[in-house]
Amino acid sequence: MSNIRKVAKLSGVSISTVSRYINKTANVKESTKIKIEKVIYDLNYVPNALARSIFSKTTFQIGLIIPTLSNPFFSEISFAIENFASIKGYSVILNIVNDDKEKEKKIIKTLIESRVDGIIVARTKHKELYENLDIPIVALENKINDKIPLLYADNWNGGRLALEHLVTCGCEKILMFVGDNKHLPIRLRKNGFMDLARESNISIATRQLFDEDENKSITELKFLFSDAELYDGIFVYNDIMAVNLIRYLSAKNLFNEIGKKINIIGFDNAIISRHMNPTITTISQNFDVLGKKSISLLINLINGECVQPISIIKTTLIKRETTKN
Amino acid sequence: MSNIRKVAKLSGVSISTVSRYINKTANVKESTKIKIEKVIYDLNYVPNALARSIFSKTTFQIGLIIPTLSNPFFSEISFAIENFASIKGYSVILNIVNDDKEKEKKIIKTLIESRVDGIIVARTKHKELYENLDIPIVALENKINDKIPLLYADNWNGGRLALEHLVTCGCEKILMFVGDNKHLPIRLRKNGFMDLARESNISIATRQLFDEDENKSITELKFLFSDAELYDGIFVYNDIMAVNLIRYLSAKNLFNEIGKKINIIGFDNAIISRHMNPTITTISQNFDVLGKKSISLLINLINGECVQPISIIKTTLIKRETTKN
Repeated sequence: MSNIRKVAKLSGVSISTVSRYINKTANVKESTKIKIEKVIYDLNYVPNALARSIFSKTTFQIGLIIPTLSNPFFSEISFAIENFASIKGYSVILNIVNDDKEKEKKIIKTLIESRVDGIIVARTKHKELYENLDIPIVALENKINDKIPLLYADNWNGGRLALEHLVTCGCEKILMFVGDNKHLPIRLRKNGFMDLARESNISIATRQLFDEDENKSITELKFLFSDAELYDGIFVYNDIMAVNLIRYLSAKNLFNEIGKKINIIGFDNAIISRHMNPTITTISQNFDVLGKKSISLLINLINGECVQPISIIKTTLIKRETTKN
Repeated sequence: MSNIRKVAKLSGVSISTVSRYINKTANVKESTKIKIEKVIYDLNYVPNALARSIFSKTTFQIGLIIPTLSNPFFSEISFAIENFASIKGYSVILNIVNDDKEKEKKIIKTLIESRVDGIIVARTKHKELYENLDIPIVALENKINDKIPLLYADNWNGGRLALEHLVTCGCEKILMFVGDNKHLPIRLRKNGFMDLARESNISIATRQLFDEDENKSITELKFLFSDAELYDGIFVYNDIMAVNLIRYLSAKNLFNEIGKKINIIGFDNAIISRHMNPTITTISQNFDVLGKKSISLLINLINGECVQPISIIKTTLIKRETTKN
């Protein structure tokens, strides 16, 4: 393959001028640029980004670490992150840890050795792995420590919006399916819902679910859902479990009551919530804004700027068929 | 940061020995290894993968190019690809082209400049962009040219399995929703279904849908679905459109007929097919096998080995609630 020396020779300029042109480290005269570009085109010369990166100490690569792609929250957020990273000139290395601590450890080692410019890590369960890393990091959803900026959707207010909407629908017997307490956003959803209930003197029945329940069949979930139909307003901590509740009620021949006698509201605005039968009223996490913000925070850190320790993205109500009003 | 020179000095060995140890280019005595490892640990020295890559001409990075992450087919396949790549020691750079030819062009340029070891490209609409690339490439779903190995699920036989199943369910009036003809796998599904119908003397009504229809609302799709309930066996070319058909029928108060008087079978075994209400009988593309095979084909190419020009992965019937038997 042709190299920088050949490009310099054929353009009649010095190697350092070609290098300045390729690495954009200093201005090159317009007429010189045109000469160099023509030679590069003729030679079909591909600049070596690796060599450039060693020189410039930046790879324009960022590592994205997520638990799974099967949960629509993470596929939507990855979609948005890739989109905004690409607009800003960064490539995204996708890493799925799948609850495997050893894999997460290995991934971090590989990313650091590859000299990525920064890391976005979503909902990690192993924050200790990130403690002593000397690299820009943005944490999505779960806090790692005080030094690493944290970004999440306003789950607390999302919980309030959910209860407000059920009240607007005229619901009087309200049930909340609470998710796994170990996740901060899940706790905040519950707290927002409960705080408004307390302020408004509304009594709430609760049922506790855990992460493991998301992989169970409707038959296995029967016990947890058993008396849901006694309530006229139900808040479920995420859309996937709202889907399961709807399937449970349908199997009990209560399909036609949903959105009439039984109002259901989920959380996430996952793709499935707009496709489900019926479509699910939910609280949107605004994935696009989350993706954009996580990239802009990371780029600020990469550029050595200060960023807010916590950024909170607004949540909004998306009204669909599972609720009356 | 400490460097290789320091490691050599403190371990009391030569720089080339440390280099041999780090780059695994030749054997290093066990006792020397232990000495080097201890110094590396004490110094918290991180080998520079960029420098190593320039030397070894391999980055252990592969580029994955997909059209979207919103379609579960692509999120499932990306999940499987990342999983198997990681097992084989490769990182995956995620690139979403989103039907944007300019973006796809830029992505390819960036991947080549970053010296990725190979590229997996799924369902590209711009095969001309890949014509003259001098790098291992595996094409998923859509053929690029005779030189680039192609991998896809056995959509033709999947179409046959779908009709076989509807016949087993006792269906006599059969309707097929045909997808966009420009995609090879979509054409093959139709052909398999039709070939078996011809062999078995079964007459089939068809309705043509296009890619754009997947983003339409149920109201906009009304016209296309309008007489679906007149049939007792319906094959829909993918799960997302099967979901829409089910929602259309439910809105017409035919929810209770689904899986009884009206049998519906989709295609893909996308996540939504197991969560939908009712759960959807479908043809599985075996994402795990597709992911594993695409990585093993690419690694074979990277290692300079010959691979089959076309690999076809078996499809299987997944029986769920939308069909009787």
